[in-house]
Amino acid sequence: MPKLLILSSEIEEYRNRIQQANLANLEFTDQLDDCDIVLGEPRVIREKLPQLPYVKWIQSMYAGVEALMDPSFRHDYILTNARGVFGELMSEYVFGYLLAHEKKIFKRQQAQQDKKYDRFESGWLRGKTLGLLGVGSIGAHLAGMAKHFGMNVHGFTRGSETSTHVDRYFHPLESDSLLSNQQELAPALQSFASELDYLVVVLPRTEGTNQIVDADLLNALPSHAVLVNVGRGNAVDEPALVDALTQGKIASAVLDVTAQEPLPEDHPFWTTPNLLLTFHTSAISYPEDITRLFIENYHLYVEGKPLKYLVDFERGY
Amino acid sequence: MPKLLILSSEIEEYRNRIQQANLANLEFTDQLDDCDIVLGEPRVIREKLPQLPYVKWIQSMYAGVEALMDPSFRHDYILTNARGVFGELMSEYVFGYLLAHEKKIFKRQQAQQDKKYDRFESGWLRGKTLGLLGVGSIGAHLAGMAKHFGMNVHGFTRGSETSTHVDRYFHPLESDSLLSNQQELAPALQSFASELDYLVVVLPRTEGTNQIVDADLLNALPSHAVLVNVGRGNAVDEPALVDALTQGKIASAVLDVTAQEPLPEDHPFWTTPNLLLTFHTSAISYPEDITRLFIENYHLYVEGKPLKYLVDFERGY
Repeated sequence: MPKLLILSSEIEEYRNRIQQANLANLEFTDQLDDCDIVLGEPRVIREKLPQLPYVKWIQSMYAGVEALMDPSFRHDYILTNARGVFGELMSEYVFGYLLAHEKKIFKRQQAQQDKKYDRFESGWLRGKTLGLLGVGSIGAHLAGMAKHFGMNVHGFTRGSETSTHVDRYFHPLESDSLLSNQQELAPALQSFASELDYLVVVLPRTEGTNQIVDADLLNALPSHAVLVNVGRGNAVDEPALVDALTQGKIASAVLDVTAQEPLPEDHPFWTTPNLLLTFHTSAISYPEDITRLFIENYHLYVEGKPLKYLVDFERGY
Repeated sequence: MPKLLILSSEIEEYRNRIQQANLANLEFTDQLDDCDIVLGEPRVIREKLPQLPYVKWIQSMYAGVEALMDPSFRHDYILTNARGVFGELMSEYVFGYLLAHEKKIFKRQQAQQDKKYDRFESGWLRGKTLGLLGVGSIGAHLAGMAKHFGMNVHGFTRGSETSTHVDRYFHPLESDSLLSNQQELAPALQSFASELDYLVVVLPRTEGTNQIVDADLLNALPSHAVLVNVGRGNAVDEPALVDALTQGKIASAVLDVTAQEPLPEDHPFWTTPNLLLTFHTSAISYPEDITRLFIENYHLYVEGKPLKYLVDFERGY
């Protein structure tokens, strides 16, 4: 009989939601040494990992599972993450900030405060080109929304060309390599970057994504381009971004994530021109969404079928 | 042989674009008394209306044609307006401000300026209800975009239920009446308003739309609701809106249009709390779009077929 341990600050809500689903045979436990299934937050799970002798399947409540990836940790269980639920939330965030840029809403608010009836023109997403650095399930959802706004969509990915909403795919030159090699990546990435109006980074934190948005990539972007990072802070070379914004090499940047969170008080990002910080709020794991996904996988688990949203420990996501 | 007069501040651009289309038999003229077709801006056309003896068809470059509606003006020609081209532009504006509200982007910018790493939660369009006051071609486009964001869409219209993206339609009680009667309208409108998170006004200026958004309607909206007006300023009872915002009866308002434009320097809107002004910039008549539409109608005109985007002088739009 499967026994589930929930490791989260929202245990009660998850337990209630799962109980309402009346899953055949599922028992709840609060004992670490008595469960075969864990549903939880990666950082909470990490602390308990050595004390889970019988765990066979862990369902992460988050998309990012880097907390469980350290090669020194055990990887003798099936890990699945939260996927397919953040696309629509991330779309609201990304298109909110893209439209804020085109509609110049901060500048318009200033005109109002200055009591100036100033009819400067808006820009438009229609016809612009959005580049997705990373085309997983979130990237694919962003691509679909971009098409609704009449945008061109370019995608840079190591993976296969699974989203039909991406008009043009770019790949690293050595597409078989899982670990990145900046020297090899650079030409393909720069050619990808040079045609973009918006670069949206949707990468997981892995060794291969460290500082992939570096000075070369920022230089390759047109000077009117806007960078948005909703993936992980490790993807951006932060001093290079401060330089690019200060020198006007790109128009602006919207960062939901930073290398260090919370952002240190003395970090230059607080006052870098044309930089907007949103403090890791672009998407949230809602128990309603995560429970749906857990139940979907639970049925597969009890039937002995392959689970969905599998994490590849070697790839790191 | 059809002769076209262009009455616009962008004559050259329109002429070049139309010439590139090589329309059979079309001649250009700059003589008022020598044309049967006029393509132009309604306010420019109004001045010339008495001096156009042979005009048969006028294609407006704008959606709003109230400048030509005065009952004392001649109406012995076919008037078509610009339709179907503003929906996607208006969608960018409307969803830009809806998302700015949900993502709290002004409050987040303030947190950054205050150097506070404050992770207050965003709201979401997903699951919210958008009410369209007016469901013409712009309203229908907004409805479609709202569905992409997972919203419920309610529509209030005198017309027929033509948009499949509207989940629920509301109509005035006396649906045959063309002129509004506030006493009759009120109950249906208030029931429409009471369930909304967002009320977007997309009405033309007619006698029937004067001050349709009055104190009663604003009172009927939930206190967290947001009003957006991208139609015409006449639709809003402006002192009532100042009261509603000042007293927190609704959460905020975004006005692209006002009764008087430019907004007078001493107008209370400049400093009304939670009111954003955007100075009639939500959509623009781009020659590329308007030329496409003119050519479409020109072919129908020379073939003697009914034109598209016909304005009904009695209805006023």
